[in-house]
Amino acid sequence: MVGGGLTSFIGPVHRKAAGIDGEIELVAGAFSIIPGESKETGEALYLDPKRVYETYDEMFANEKKMPEDKRIDFVSVVTPNHVHFGPSKAALENGFHVLVEKPIAFSLDEAKTLREIVNKTGLILGLTHTYTGYPLVKEARKMVSEGKLGEIRKVYVEYPQGWLSTLLEKSGNMQASWRTDPKQSGMGGAIGDIGTHAANLAEYITGQKITEICALLNTVVKGRHLDDDSSMLIKFENGASGVLLATQVAAGEENNLNIRVYGEKGGIEWRQMEPNTMIVKWLGKPMEVIRAGQAYLSDEAKAFTRTPAGHPEGYLEAFANIYRAFTKAVRAYQPGKKTDYEKFDFPDVEDGVRGMNFVQTVVQSATSDKKWTPMKDV
Amino acid sequence: MVGGGLTSFIGPVHRKAAGIDGEIELVAGAFSIIPGESKETGEALYLDPKRVYETYDEMFANEKKMPEDKRIDFVSVVTPNHVHFGPSKAALENGFHVLVEKPIAFSLDEAKTLREIVNKTGLILGLTHTYTGYPLVKEARKMVSEGKLGEIRKVYVEYPQGWLSTLLEKSGNMQASWRTDPKQSGMGGAIGDIGTHAANLAEYITGQKITEICALLNTVVKGRHLDDDSSMLIKFENGASGVLLATQVAAGEENNLNIRVYGEKGGIEWRQMEPNTMIVKWLGKPMEVIRAGQAYLSDEAKAFTRTPAGHPEGYLEAFANIYRAFTKAVRAYQPGKKTDYEKFDFPDVEDGVRGMNFVQTVVQSATSDKKWTPMKDV
Amino acid sequence: MVGGGLTSFIGPVHRKAAGIDGEIELVAGAFSIIPGESKETGEALYLDPKRVYETYDEMFANEKKMPEDKRIDFVSVVTPNHVHFGPSKAALENGFHVLVEKPIAFSLDEAKTLREIVNKTGLILGLTHTYTGYPLVKEARKMVSEGKLGEIRKVYVEYPQGWLSTLLEKSGNMQASWRTDPKQSGMGGAIGDIGTHAANLAEYITGQKITEICALLNTVVKGRHLDDDSSMLIKFENGASGVLLATQVAAGEENNLNIRVYGEKGGIEWRQMEPNTMIVKWLGKPMEVIRAGQAYLSDEAKAFTRTPAGHPEGYLEAFANIYRAFTKAVRAYQPGKKTDYEKFDFPDVEDGVRGMNFVQTVVQSATSDKKWTPMKDV
Amino acid sequence: MVGGGLTSFIGPVHRKAAGIDGEIELVAGAFSIIPGESKETGEALYLDPKRVYETYDEMFANEKKMPEDKRIDFVSVVTPNHVHFGPSKAALENGFHVLVEKPIAFSLDEAKTLREIVNKTGLILGLTHTYTGYPLVKEARKMVSEGKLGEIRKVYVEYPQGWLSTLLEKSGNMQASWRTDPKQSGMGGAIGDIGTHAANLAEYITGQKITEICALLNTVVKGRHLDDDSSMLIKFENGASGVLLATQVAAGEENNLNIRVYGEKGGIEWRQMEPNTMIVKWLGKPMEVIRAGQAYLSDEAKAFTRTPAGHPEGYLEAFANIYRAFTKAVRAYQPGKKTDYEKFDFPDVEDGVRGMNFVQTVVQSATSDKKWTPMKDV
Repeated sequence: MVGGGLTSFIGPVHRKAAGIDGEIELVAGAFSIIPGESKETGEALYLDPKRVYETYDEMFANEKKMPEDKRIDFVSVVTPNHVHFGPSKAALENGFHVLVEKPIAFSLDEAKTLREIVNKTGLILGLTHTYTGYPLVKEARKMVSEGKLGEIRKVYVEYPQGWLSTLLEKSGNMQASWRTDPKQSGMGGAIGDIGTHAANLAEYITGQKITEICALLNTVVKGRHLDDDSSMLIKFENGASGVLLATQVAAGEENNLNIRVYGEKGGIEWRQMEPNTMIVKWLGKPMEVIRAGQAYLSDEAKAFTRTPAGHPEGYLEAFANIYRAFTKAVRAYQPGKKTDYEKFDFPDVEDGVRGMNFVQTVVQSATSDKKWTPMKDV
Repeated sequence: MVGGGLTSFIGPVHRKAAGIDGEIELVAGAFSIIPGESKETGEALYLDPKRVYETYDEMFANEKKMPEDKRIDFVSVVTPNHVHFGPSKAALENGFHVLVEKPIAFSLDEAKTLREIVNKTGLILGLTHTYTGYPLVKEARKMVSEGKLGEIRKVYVEYPQGWLSTLLEKSGNMQASWRTDPKQSGMGGAIGDIGTHAANLAEYITGQKITEICALLNTVVKGRHLDDDSSMLIKFENGASGVLLATQVAAGEENNLNIRVYGEKGGIEWRQMEPNTMIVKWLGKPMEVIRAGQAYLSDEAKAFTRTPAGHPEGYLEAFANIYRAFTKAVRAYQPGKKTDYEKFDFPDVEDGVRGMNFVQTVVQSATSDKKWTPMKDV
Repeated sequence: MVGGGLTSFIGPVHRKAAGIDGEIELVAGAFSIIPGESKETGEALYLDPKRVYETYDEMFANEKKMPEDKRIDFVSVVTPNHVHFGPSKAALENGFHVLVEKPIAFSLDEAKTLREIVNKTGLILGLTHTYTGYPLVKEARKMVSEGKLGEIRKVYVEYPQGWLSTLLEKSGNMQASWRTDPKQSGMGGAIGDIGTHAANLAEYITGQKITEICALLNTVVKGRHLDDDSSMLIKFENGASGVLLATQVAAGEENNLNIRVYGEKGGIEWRQMEPNTMIVKWLGKPMEVIRAGQAYLSDEAKAFTRTPAGHPEGYLEAFANIYRAFTKAVRAYQPGKKTDYEKFDFPDVEDGVRGMNFVQTVVQSATSDKKWTPMKDV
Repeated sequence: MVGGGLTSFIGPVHRKAAGIDGEIELVAGAFSIIPGESKETGEALYLDPKRVYETYDEMFANEKKMPEDKRIDFVSVVTPNHVHFGPSKAALENGFHVLVEKPIAFSLDEAKTLREIVNKTGLILGLTHTYTGYPLVKEARKMVSEGKLGEIRKVYVEYPQGWLSTLLEKSGNMQASWRTDPKQSGMGGAIGDIGTHAANLAEYITGQKITEICALLNTVVKGRHLDDDSSMLIKFENGASGVLLATQVAAGEENNLNIRVYGEKGGIEWRQMEPNTMIVKWLGKPMEVIRAGQAYLSDEAKAFTRTPAGHPEGYLEAFANIYRAFTKAVRAYQPGKKTDYEKFDFPDVEDGVRGMNFVQTVVQSATSDKKWTPMKDV
């Protein structure tokens, strides 16, 4: 693991998610650039002190020398955005697979560089777009791909949060502070932090790419250095259209990612905060309520549940699903052979590049007087 | 009453709403242009046959001649959109107050003409923007105006329906048929029919006017002659921004008007389909659930309920609230004195003009390449 | 109308409910025993002063003398419980149909007397068990009777309110004061006031009679003279069993009548406070959400809606449904011919007798050490 | 671990729950009495084959000989009910702490024997009454104990499931088959399997013991050998009363454990299937919605969350909370010193005895003609 020291938010989430299924063991880490914190973290995690490193370069160099059945199998990169690229690149170049926090990098160029390395080496890079790990998101994707809703016409995806309603970054909150700092977070604030999740979710469920964007980006809280609010009209490749909004100033909202997709015959509605329930609305028939863990779900959804219906799973399990799919791919990896990402079903380097592309397109649209800005393939 | 024959949808709604409080008695009508239907309707409604007319001109002429305590006090105009202007104008010119279905007219110019007549005569014109009649909408407006949410930052208002997901107008459905006919409905389809309700609701609750619009209008169902789907980014005079969407092709949706308004301190969420419940989200405090009929509500909200909490009121009662407020103004009317619309709290001719202005601005924006189209005062 | 003076709660509810459909006109009343209040009420309701009476005896005597097409067609009795019997009996004996507030009388004996008179005269007596007037309650009854849920096994019916959590009757609240006074309310407090609604709803939906009761009655608030809380185990004639609870001390509850019925294949859940939605749970299939106003409903349910799906109806409309069905029966009434109550579908004198029987059985069970007390046909 | 072979339902749940926090490592097990299954399970779990045993006696004997820092610290017993007592007793007698599945034993006598051994040895025994592990259940308990609701008056606790609506035990379903077999499950079917959870939850939240029970036990599905349905009236030591129901034939229900508790000032409502939300109803004030992970919660609740508000936690996390609290007690254990169970807050041997007492009292009440059966301290 790179990053994830004792004060980290996402580090423990990764460790818990990786621990659920008993298939992954954390054995080494460069947890922090704060002197001593890496060591301290390693102790708290019962790690062998010899495998707790001060820098990721040191870790890769050392681990590489160890016998294959002892050394790390892959690296989790859980640092702030501006330190995603460095360790990911170094890991790949040293022959290690990588699971990296979203966004994949600080800029689209960095993302494209990582894609090149992945394509060249054949190594596996996964990205923790957690929300596509939920079983009912899999079910939604399946329903759309099977045409149960008919041709998709409308997509409304929202990610409202409220925690940045005040200038929290000035009060010592570390999570707020790096996320609102363009040097650590990148060119996008809310749009990068959570807007990318919304875009990824919409494209994942519909199987349609966003092709045009008309965006409004705001910095609502005075004194902030990045956008904390966004809304946009979007068009998809099949002609569907919709709305995407991502805001961190919707006071009182927690983490209310939700999506509604309507086709000719009906629509679905899914909310991350009650992730085990999906509403399906039908033209002229009673609404249905689909529940995680039920026998009537598709195999795709069932493969990602651990408990029977009525025993709720949550965020950590969705996160664990990304880990589970990624590590299955890692286990199946054979040097020189191409990995079938579709089969393992986890966000990969292409999603990473697309996310950076999305942020760049939104920022471009937001500063343009023209209504529509195309989101081109890169 | 003008319009509202036996096959009408909205006519009976008006009659039932007007009947609830026992303060209004239907005594005369020109119910239909279909020969004989007016008479038949009058019979079904137990009216004196002498006061059932074939045309509204005949009605106004005749009623005017009757003694003041016998003749009609006001006229309800419940015809399709293109027949709102004529009878409303005629009624006013014959000295009768008017309660007209929304939209007030077929075009902005007609609306402005009605405003001129109202201003000149001092007669009262009410508009059935039903949804602002709900008590919790009053409560929401009150909370905002008292600053309970702090300065308003975000407004999301949606009006998804699904009933026009197919080409229903070709199957003999009368409601679908005039609503999708530019000659009867006007320049806006969904945007005029339901988008105006959404805009009116947003401005009513926030007390802020929409100043700029960036709209996408679609005709999703092939063969249709007007828009059936819209989404737009909107800006308000105080700097708030948001999203408005109105669609009639969200398959499986009924009449799901809803609004979320966020200020610095918290946000409210109200849904027309469960109108007796409003959620209030607070920054750092538990969410609250406000319920219609409760003693803790403001006087403004309490004035518009008939039953105690837990005895649900609905659409007809909201409609009746418009009637009740309008008729209070009518009773208080004194020739030559100005009516204090704010005090009686019902949608009036200004709302009517504003609605037509909104439709015109949206259509203009939708056909423009420029991102923002101003919505100017007219 | 008998009762329903200016300070009455239920009087205005009756008048509004009767006014919605434009089929009933209030023309006469003995509104209060408080001298002058009847007159005052009549004025407020725009009645002909000659038809506003000080006593119901006076009213019946006078109205009877009027020509048939002028005099009242039926009487609504909306007094406190101990004054249901007198005016109902007098009305019937004077040849008027009666719609009486629930409970039908003060005691089972009185109820049986009314039944005798009804049976003898053939006149129509309706009872405002309002909650069976909701369209989705009709739908539920239909689903059960058609066997869609299979044989019924479990019935859970609850009526929690919280408004009597304190000794409200000592603070001048008139509603609380007569309801907790055994001389005005009868032998049952909460059990009579709301428990009877719950029992009626359960029997109406399931089509099964309660045959045995094991009850606990409490007076939770000190100083109160009647029960304010009850819970009981119940058995039905087909072998199903369940729980009925009715309490007025569930602090914070409004009027939360709800029922769940499970059969071999699935179950339904309906809540009065959101009456336009019914959840249907199925063994091994997705839950369904049935909505009032939808085209897919049974004719029985559709006959009792006024607005399309998504335009919520509420308590007054349910109330109006009782009036509508009752007045249809009144219109169809032919002296000497038996009324087919099943066809018109409103609560009648048998429901009234059964309600009194229920109260008496519960009180008997509550004072018994034996587990089960039979509820015998009377 | 004793039990939890490859076909087990609850074994993997224990392993995942124990794995989440990275504080527990599974190192040894006697996973099955089916020859070979233990070995196979051990392999699948990457265990050292030397520590995978055929019997628990063998495991305890062997592990005991290992050095203290290598050998197991505690044992999880995850076998069917009739094999809880044996391994638990053996573990304690060999000096190992025990975390045992609920119910603690097959009979009240066995439970009391275990209590004696625990009291004598001072070793720690935990019981996985999972549902009290949810953070909002902790919050509810705290609110009640602080008197926020006032004196408790009413308790309604329900545990409806539907999975045994048919004679599933005859179709090869292993979970159904042992649970409905009196020889493996004990004297209680649904009442033991899930009724005990409901009773435990009610007593945990209210801090009040059930003192009297009036129960109806049914075997609804023909051919079944144990009760599959129950409902009962209950009284608590402080005078509160209520209803407990536990059924496995509520067709269409998943695992819908829920509880409502009302005091003088307000009430709470919590549902296991949406465990991160608790509704608090107040007399005369707006309802509040309390959410897991929020900063405004009590320390007691916060101590049991892993993710911020809006990132849902579920069943596995609640389960992990039992493990976490139990292992904290195990770490703090000092031979000869008494463990302060209140401080660590997990279900212990007393809860186990009480659960068996509850089952026995319910069965006794169900077969009695008398209304009330006391639940005596044992």
